[in-house]
Amino acid sequence: MPRSSEASTESEGARTKSARTRRRLLDAAASVLSEKGFSGTRLTDVAEKARMQAPAIYYYYPSREDLIEEVVFVGAAAMRAHLVEALEASAGRPPAARIAAAVEAHLRNELQLSDYSRAMIRNANQLPEHVSRRALAEVAAYNDLWRTLVADLAAAGQLREDIDPSAARMLVLGALNWAAEWWDPERGSIEDVIRTAQSMVLHALRP
Amino acid sequence: MPRSSEASTESEGARTKSARTRRRLLDAAASVLSEKGFSGTRLTDVAEKARMQAPAIYYYYPSREDLIEEVVFVGAAAMRAHLVEALEASAGRPPAARIAAAVEAHLRNELQLSDYSRAMIRNANQLPEHVSRRALAEVAAYNDLWRTLVADLAAAGQLREDIDPSAARMLVLGALNWAAEWWDPERGSIEDVIRTAQSMVLHALRP
Repeated sequence: MPRSSEASTESEGARTKSARTRRRLLDAAASVLSEKGFSGTRLTDVAEKARMQAPAIYYYYPSREDLIEEVVFVGAAAMRAHLVEALEASAGRPPAARIAAAVEAHLRNELQLSDYSRAMIRNANQLPEHVSRRALAEVAAYNDLWRTLVADLAAAGQLREDIDPSAARMLVLGALNWAAEWWDPERGSIEDVIRTAQSMVLHALRP
Repeated sequence: MPRSSEASTESEGARTKSARTRRRLLDAAASVLSEKGFSGTRLTDVAEKARMQAPAIYYYYPSREDLIEEVVFVGAAAMRAHLVEALEASAGRPPAARIAAAVEAHLRNELQLSDYSRAMIRNANQLPEHVSRRALAEVAAYNDLWRTLVADLAAAGQLREDIDPSAARMLVLGALNWAAEWWDPERGSIEDVIRTAQSMVLHALRP
């Protein structure tokens, strides 16, 4: 049945092309959102970056908010996946070494690897609830991983007793998140930022 | 000339009332903007909080953006004024004590004293350039004060040599700024956050 088989191949080709276009659209949206923020993200800019016509976006996403919802969810999931990977790679090492690995994973994903993650960090807290819900659930799971890291440090007797563990965790994550606001690859190397952040975080936490 | 004098008193009364309403409007805008962000700040919500009709806002500000521009500028100027005051009060004290005072000034103004400052911190980097220009000039001056604080610490031989001073300053300011995203007066006392932040910052910077 050559005809049927041909049709099937054709439709698979169309699906692949559609998936590629969808991915290009999401990539473009992540890039624009990470730079311009929620209110500044215009579909015409996203379409231009994705090399497509703006109305064609609605073939893939019913609304601007649906597109942005997907971007911030993917960004939050990437942060978590990247941290899980770093923690697996440093399994069995001392708590301080695992925290250093987590600092590096956070900064590298935010600043270097993922427009999606940078877009999520810069915007998730100010989106309408239905746009941020899935992303914020990932962020909560991410925070839980950090809570364990700090608890492990405390269990090893290496968390200073004059600091509040919960505030300490959030201050560390804040320092890392805010790097999206100021770090500029042209101003300095990401390796310097990572090294400085690792050193500061460990000195800030340990006796 | 009782008539003229009366008229003058009346018009002064009107000016005072107008200034009070304008202030109430700005306060309301700062509160809404600090919670909802730029894209979520609707004039109807601002008007309701200010106990006025939405169209009356245009008597005071030609546009939503003009209103928000004023809020973030006032917020940035308040951060700087509050820091200058704290530094004057700690003049002559050791660099580390002045940094501790600056940490407290930042957090207190951001979390406790000023909706304007919290609104500025959460939004200034994602506003259209013409809306954020005056605020960001204040932020640059604020950063210069911190640059001096870190330089003074270094001059006293109390900045660790394995950290980059510029990245260190921005990581500290990021930790403080991000507190606007998570601190909740119902979850814990601001004094605990200030104490933890002061201790972490000084341990992060000093040998």
